[in-house]
Amino acid sequence: MSLVVSKTSSGREYKVRDLSQADFGRLEIELAEVEMPGLMSCRSEFGPSQPFKGARITGSLHMTIQTAVLIETLTALGAEVRWCSCNIFSTQDHAAAAIARDSASVFAWKGETLEEYWWCTEKALDWGPGGGPDLIVDDGGDATLLIHEGVKAEEEFEKSGKLPDPSSTDNAEFRIVLGLIKEGLLVDPKRYRKMKERLVGVSEETTTGVKRLYQMQVNGTLLFPAINVNDSVTKSKFDNLYGCRHSLPDGLMRATDVMIAGKVAVVCGYGDVGKGCAAALKQAGARVVVTEIDPICALQALMEGIPVLTLEDVVSEADIFVTTTGNKDIIMVHHMRKMKNNAIVCNIGHFDNEIDMHGLETYPGVKRITIKPQTDRWVFPETNSGIIVLAEGRLMNLGCATGHPSFVMSCSFTNQVIAQLELWKERASGKYEKKVYVLPKHLDEKVAALHLGKLGAKLTKLTPAQAAYISIPVDGPYKPPNYRY
Amino acid sequence: MSLVVSKTSSGREYKVRDLSQADFGRLEIELAEVEMPGLMSCRSEFGPSQPFKGARITGSLHMTIQTAVLIETLTALGAEVRWCSCNIFSTQDHAAAAIARDSASVFAWKGETLEEYWWCTEKALDWGPGGGPDLIVDDGGDATLLIHEGVKAEEEFEKSGKLPDPSSTDNAEFRIVLGLIKEGLLVDPKRYRKMKERLVGVSEETTTGVKRLYQMQVNGTLLFPAINVNDSVTKSKFDNLYGCRHSLPDGLMRATDVMIAGKVAVVCGYGDVGKGCAAALKQAGARVVVTEIDPICALQALMEGIPVLTLEDVVSEADIFVTTTGNKDIIMVHHMRKMKNNAIVCNIGHFDNEIDMHGLETYPGVKRITIKPQTDRWVFPETNSGIIVLAEGRLMNLGCATGHPSFVMSCSFTNQVIAQLELWKERASGKYEKKVYVLPKHLDEKVAALHLGKLGAKLTKLTPAQAAYISIPVDGPYKPPNYRY
Amino acid sequence: MSLVVSKTSSGREYKVRDLSQADFGRLEIELAEVEMPGLMSCRSEFGPSQPFKGARITGSLHMTIQTAVLIETLTALGAEVRWCSCNIFSTQDHAAAAIARDSASVFAWKGETLEEYWWCTEKALDWGPGGGPDLIVDDGGDATLLIHEGVKAEEEFEKSGKLPDPSSTDNAEFRIVLGLIKEGLLVDPKRYRKMKERLVGVSEETTTGVKRLYQMQVNGTLLFPAINVNDSVTKSKFDNLYGCRHSLPDGLMRATDVMIAGKVAVVCGYGDVGKGCAAALKQAGARVVVTEIDPICALQALMEGIPVLTLEDVVSEADIFVTTTGNKDIIMVHHMRKMKNNAIVCNIGHFDNEIDMHGLETYPGVKRITIKPQTDRWVFPETNSGIIVLAEGRLMNLGCATGHPSFVMSCSFTNQVIAQLELWKERASGKYEKKVYVLPKHLDEKVAALHLGKLGAKLTKLTPAQAAYISIPVDGPYKPPNYRY
Amino acid sequence: MSLVVSKTSSGREYKVRDLSQADFGRLEIELAEVEMPGLMSCRSEFGPSQPFKGARITGSLHMTIQTAVLIETLTALGAEVRWCSCNIFSTQDHAAAAIARDSASVFAWKGETLEEYWWCTEKALDWGPGGGPDLIVDDGGDATLLIHEGVKAEEEFEKSGKLPDPSSTDNAEFRIVLGLIKEGLLVDPKRYRKMKERLVGVSEETTTGVKRLYQMQVNGTLLFPAINVNDSVTKSKFDNLYGCRHSLPDGLMRATDVMIAGKVAVVCGYGDVGKGCAAALKQAGARVVVTEIDPICALQALMEGIPVLTLEDVVSEADIFVTTTGNKDIIMVHHMRKMKNNAIVCNIGHFDNEIDMHGLETYPGVKRITIKPQTDRWVFPETNSGIIVLAEGRLMNLGCATGHPSFVMSCSFTNQVIAQLELWKERASGKYEKKVYVLPKHLDEKVAALHLGKLGAKLTKLTPAQAAYISIPVDGPYKPPNYRY
Repeated sequence: MSLVVSKTSSGREYKVRDLSQADFGRLEIELAEVEMPGLMSCRSEFGPSQPFKGARITGSLHMTIQTAVLIETLTALGAEVRWCSCNIFSTQDHAAAAIARDSASVFAWKGETLEEYWWCTEKALDWGPGGGPDLIVDDGGDATLLIHEGVKAEEEFEKSGKLPDPSSTDNAEFRIVLGLIKEGLLVDPKRYRKMKERLVGVSEETTTGVKRLYQMQVNGTLLFPAINVNDSVTKSKFDNLYGCRHSLPDGLMRATDVMIAGKVAVVCGYGDVGKGCAAALKQAGARVVVTEIDPICALQALMEGIPVLTLEDVVSEADIFVTTTGNKDIIMVHHMRKMKNNAIVCNIGHFDNEIDMHGLETYPGVKRITIKPQTDRWVFPETNSGIIVLAEGRLMNLGCATGHPSFVMSCSFTNQVIAQLELWKERASGKYEKKVYVLPKHLDEKVAALHLGKLGAKLTKLTPAQAAYISIPVDGPYKPPNYRY
Repeated sequence: MSLVVSKTSSGREYKVRDLSQADFGRLEIELAEVEMPGLMSCRSEFGPSQPFKGARITGSLHMTIQTAVLIETLTALGAEVRWCSCNIFSTQDHAAAAIARDSASVFAWKGETLEEYWWCTEKALDWGPGGGPDLIVDDGGDATLLIHEGVKAEEEFEKSGKLPDPSSTDNAEFRIVLGLIKEGLLVDPKRYRKMKERLVGVSEETTTGVKRLYQMQVNGTLLFPAINVNDSVTKSKFDNLYGCRHSLPDGLMRATDVMIAGKVAVVCGYGDVGKGCAAALKQAGARVVVTEIDPICALQALMEGIPVLTLEDVVSEADIFVTTTGNKDIIMVHHMRKMKNNAIVCNIGHFDNEIDMHGLETYPGVKRITIKPQTDRWVFPETNSGIIVLAEGRLMNLGCATGHPSFVMSCSFTNQVIAQLELWKERASGKYEKKVYVLPKHLDEKVAALHLGKLGAKLTKLTPAQAAYISIPVDGPYKPPNYRY
Repeated sequence: MSLVVSKTSSGREYKVRDLSQADFGRLEIELAEVEMPGLMSCRSEFGPSQPFKGARITGSLHMTIQTAVLIETLTALGAEVRWCSCNIFSTQDHAAAAIARDSASVFAWKGETLEEYWWCTEKALDWGPGGGPDLIVDDGGDATLLIHEGVKAEEEFEKSGKLPDPSSTDNAEFRIVLGLIKEGLLVDPKRYRKMKERLVGVSEETTTGVKRLYQMQVNGTLLFPAINVNDSVTKSKFDNLYGCRHSLPDGLMRATDVMIAGKVAVVCGYGDVGKGCAAALKQAGARVVVTEIDPICALQALMEGIPVLTLEDVVSEADIFVTTTGNKDIIMVHHMRKMKNNAIVCNIGHFDNEIDMHGLETYPGVKRITIKPQTDRWVFPETNSGIIVLAEGRLMNLGCATGHPSFVMSCSFTNQVIAQLELWKERASGKYEKKVYVLPKHLDEKVAALHLGKLGAKLTKLTPAQAAYISIPVDGPYKPPNYRY
Repeated sequence: MSLVVSKTSSGREYKVRDLSQADFGRLEIELAEVEMPGLMSCRSEFGPSQPFKGARITGSLHMTIQTAVLIETLTALGAEVRWCSCNIFSTQDHAAAAIARDSASVFAWKGETLEEYWWCTEKALDWGPGGGPDLIVDDGGDATLLIHEGVKAEEEFEKSGKLPDPSSTDNAEFRIVLGLIKEGLLVDPKRYRKMKERLVGVSEETTTGVKRLYQMQVNGTLLFPAINVNDSVTKSKFDNLYGCRHSLPDGLMRATDVMIAGKVAVVCGYGDVGKGCAAALKQAGARVVVTEIDPICALQALMEGIPVLTLEDVVSEADIFVTTTGNKDIIMVHHMRKMKNNAIVCNIGHFDNEIDMHGLETYPGVKRITIKPQTDRWVFPETNSGIIVLAEGRLMNLGCATGHPSFVMSCSFTNQVIAQLELWKERASGKYEKKVYVLPKHLDEKVAALHLGKLGAKLTKLTPAQAAYISIPVDGPYKPPNYRY
């Protein structure tokens, strides 16, 4: 990669699409601030004491307007920040421009190639000779993965002299990762180990990244402490659910302008994300069908009046397909071939392997017609009938629209700030081992509380007698840890 | 106005933003065709007999992708067509480009000035020396109004030599209309009367235009027959209701990315449009409040769990305001001053006089900050607090998004095609006087029937005994004329 | 029939189940009054002037608590009243007892035989030697039918000496009607003609009765003026829709306690009643399927996310079947045989011929197991599998529960009172011919207005300028007659 | 108490309202069996091996039709059973009759006094000289409480000779408990300790009972192992949520026939029960307001468009009040005095202390008018305005209607059967200590799976590759223990 890093007048590095969009970005950031009371409240509560003074934070998380408010909350608390996006289509270029100009090093633009994507990730981790970041804000775990793979490769190289071999893998993206590490190794064979040494910990945003972390914990390979932000109630039961309820129809409308009412829509997976998607589609007048592996989630769908069938049962009758599973190989090319003309196929799960894009791209004689960026019609030669694939199978709400709205992201990101504060405060105390932690209930409740005033809500206060009767403190936490909400 | 008309290689006139967007427009038109079974079925049913052969049709109706499919249905049936938009922000430039290049004369672009708007309207009516169009497709009644005002002015001029006086009116837009007619009068003092002579009739799309027509009918000033397409059930109970249910949140999301869930939203008016808007906002998780003058519509809102209050009751607590009344002076600047910071104010009614834009623009010390086209923040000097106005108070679904989706517009536009066919077929029969007509019930039912197959529906068939029992023909019409659906 | 008529101490005739339930009835009537602001407001507005002084009113309308408040509104305005129910299962015995004891002659009890039903109808019309009632409040048209059939028979008898022949018809119920008329003829051959002479008019409550009236108007056989109350907006768009949305699940729950969530429910007919039923079932978590003959109503269902199929498509998969068509022969015994074990079959349309009860009862080997009154399990011999039929195919909301709630019935019945007042006021003016009329829009709007205060609603008031702009009076009527709401 | 125990011809003890209702009960039990696939499947899976052979099970759980199917599942698996209700109003007398006649010893009737209630509880625990039951099925924990209090009293008596002193407590119900224990002590001072010795464990049904158990676990006073059935996902996220969504409106309708649409309804508490109630009321057309102490639950309500306020904010404007908190002193008499005339006040939480019935009953000059059993109007002397209290403040869905429907109770009760089987199987293994346990995830998923077939659902099957990718077994459990659904 021969990409050129730019510098602001103050010497801060960046690479964005177009710095001249910074003013536009700034206006939208200011609007978003009004919608993000949790983050703004962190600024007023913690700003004066500058708790992140001296901390270097690297973020790998969709570089949107909302993320911009997160970044500027981190810098308002004293941090230095470098940032990249965690998806090739999710950057809002005006947001990236405003941050690059005003606040932090950004390496992100809408429509990166996979090579560019990993170049950006590496740049966000690259704090120069003194090693890497102190803290990572991760979403999906790619920054964390790069360090873990880097350390593994360095150790192997030190032991056996063997360099990572990109050709050893079928996975196109992982090949790029290995190539990147290989290059790096030749320059500095201790680079990722130095990073690991400095790193205090990571806070991870999403289900997929969390799954990776727990696997590493189980395998004993986790290199630093991690806080699982996803499983804060105020994250997974809000962002995943209400965020997707908002942004799925937004993505569908911006990409295709299709009328949702009257259509048959299949939602693969009925977890928090699937529940949000199904609710949105149902409310818009679609007939929704859910596919599920888990009988409990399936029974929940049924109780909401949603039939649970297999993809095979409905593949040739449905108009819209959405994958939300966090698993792979959900909609395969053999499914797509049986779909109706102009059926819409999209994914709102973190990774792009839910839809068999490889199978589609390599289908003999298939024709791709790009309607507009992130909206492609793929025509099969036998039937001359096409399907419409959004965002090349990647997160359609970020690829085709602007992702989740500010208010719900304020919940998620306030958890992030609190997690980062906690990791940094306890950096020397040994409180956090190389394990995965969730935030304590009272912080979770605090995040919610910070968002009530904006919506005009008034809480009822327990009397001491009532608190005693149900054996909880008057000021909470109000629920046992396993409470499901 | 010194705008330049372009010509295609075949000599067809047009003025659009950018003809190079024609390919993109064509792709989206092709997608829309699949979603518009009513129009496509008109093409196959009537195309072979070319019933519009020799007919000149002028349209004044939002120049969108859906309208493009309407236009090409008219041309597929033999018509020659000239078109303009009926709103300065509602044109989709790629749709205009495709039509201009391939099918009809178009004078429309997104973001016209008012002067440009009326220039376009006049151009669409200007079929050259031979007089005007045979038929008009109108939406809001501006083409019809121009002819009526033109004829009035010509008659006055012939009688008294008096020219129209633009300075006689406070209304900025009507001043432009008078100026235009005045200019025309000096060139050809019989122009609009010649148009009137040739005109077979108009079919009108929307509530506002229909109201104007009935007023002219009552006053005895209507110059030609009119078919009220708006009051076809398959128009007003579908487009107005389900169309807005789709496009209101679409416009809000594209313009502001605001989270609707949790917000307080005020919908002014609970007619078909208001019902659609309220349903959309409620389903998205807003707390909706309706304002109404009509006790029946008010009681309907209450039965759906929606409180009915006055604007004054909620003006300082609500987050989103939508006007849907078809009346004027609904949200005044004195209301806007009391709103919360960044309250969103928008209109989805036909005309832009529901929101007091004039009062806002002339408020002493007010500051306008354009976030992006059609999204402005207006800051009041006393409070330094701002409100966000969409599409300058014009139809926000067309100004900030792409209007109603294809499927529901197929219902509306199939009514238009049928109305135009009927007017043209009966042009010499005297069947239609200078009055306002609605389409007969069986045609309304036919429009619905044409849209069922796409959604996989199967109708039940009456037995003769059942039909006799309820005294209707086996094949309908199934309901009495006053049935409310 | 050898039924014995009782008399109160004041000499008022009645026949009810148990007069000792009058106190209980009174308590519930008092609760209902608080929920029926329209009727109570009629009492305060018109009570002092006693407009019904001297008027005899016969009602044939479900003898429920709500009807009791109607009856006592009529008597509060000066009328003398005799009443019967219009359905063998719809009487609430405590309501009948309270009215019989305190206010009017009542002939009604829950669970009449058909013979008893028509005996009650005749008793309600029998005002003694001076002829019949001055006014009729009818629901379904049975009182009106009896008079029309009576007059026809008397004329035939006078002309030809022929008596009506009960054996001439297959219809079991009509056989009873003919028998009754025959008996009456032998006693007084001018009875029904005297009734007709005295009768000022009828106000009819429901779709089915209205259909009959329009047929008689078309055939020229209508014997007196009729006001169609059903087609007041505040009746058909409230009672039919929101009333059924309430009382359908109520009936299902009281009769069967079945969980609605998760079930497949088929609603036959998507008119106002069907829309209310489908909404209720959907909201309760059922998967709803609609059957329709009318493509417009079908398309409405689809826009709400409800599939439209034929009964045949779903008969063996659905759990709950509801008929709402107002037509006959909707669910036949051959359908019932294909249903799942314990499928629930019920009707909420006015008459009991939507479900083929005759076919079921006469099915060879079928076994009827009465779970409790109005809830029967019918077991087919071949499969040993049963279906559950509610209220023997009659109005299940009245047979198995208590019908529509007071508030919505207050809308309907206020229309009734206004219609009765109008007929009575114009009894000598010739304003009403032997035709069917609807109430004028401003009275319809008034009915709605009377119900807003109870729900805390505040209307917005038009300014004169706004009223002029949309060409309506400041105080309404706010809509044109054909407006659909 | 001088109540007389009856015996069946086979010598089984019982006390029910009316044994002649047994046939009716049997018919409804047979209907319920079709709706309870989980229980029926337990019968076919475990019936042949008679795992409960020799086990004595005492149940204290609402003696409804659904519970009858549970009891007969336990007996079908070999158990001997004695049963009482856990609420004075919740028994369905026909269900009790059928069970008493056919299957088990029952001591329960609708409308017990508190003395009778505790007499029944004691009878259900009284297996004669050989000690008490082997297993307890508890709901709310009253059977468990009686044993714990009994043991405490016996130990105190043995130690100090002191008898329990009923006059030592203000709580009227606890006074009865102490009196009962005191009486028992005089007869057999080891009675409850013998019970404790024999007892293998308890499975507890509901939130309130579970809270008590965890408190005892924390205090170290729990006398035997307990399985917390409430926190199975297939219990608390189904029964509590969907059960109440069904049975709250059912109770309201049967008790008051009030129209829910248009009303303002306050739901105190937005846990699973509150969520179900709020959903039901909202769907029925009420304007719902929630009160909450927990900011997270409050934010959930807001995301669904429901305002969160304090009771004080809305007490004088709301029409319907429902308590769902599991806490005490929620609606006090000073609140009730401010309510609108005929406001409805009811509770759907386990205990009757959410509503201040004591304050109401002792309010000077208050008048109680019983409309019908479980529906009382209380009139305050100052205002002459009344409120309507359902079921005397006890569980209104069981007091005024028939509780949750069979299908959802099948989920709950299948968990009960599995818990009882587990306790019994491991009775000698030491697997369960004197602690509170939840069922493992795979059993929870199994319960759900048993209920899918009835609703026609089809699950998708993981491929081994997919299972490996997300690190779970192909056949589940599919989620980590802390997953929230």
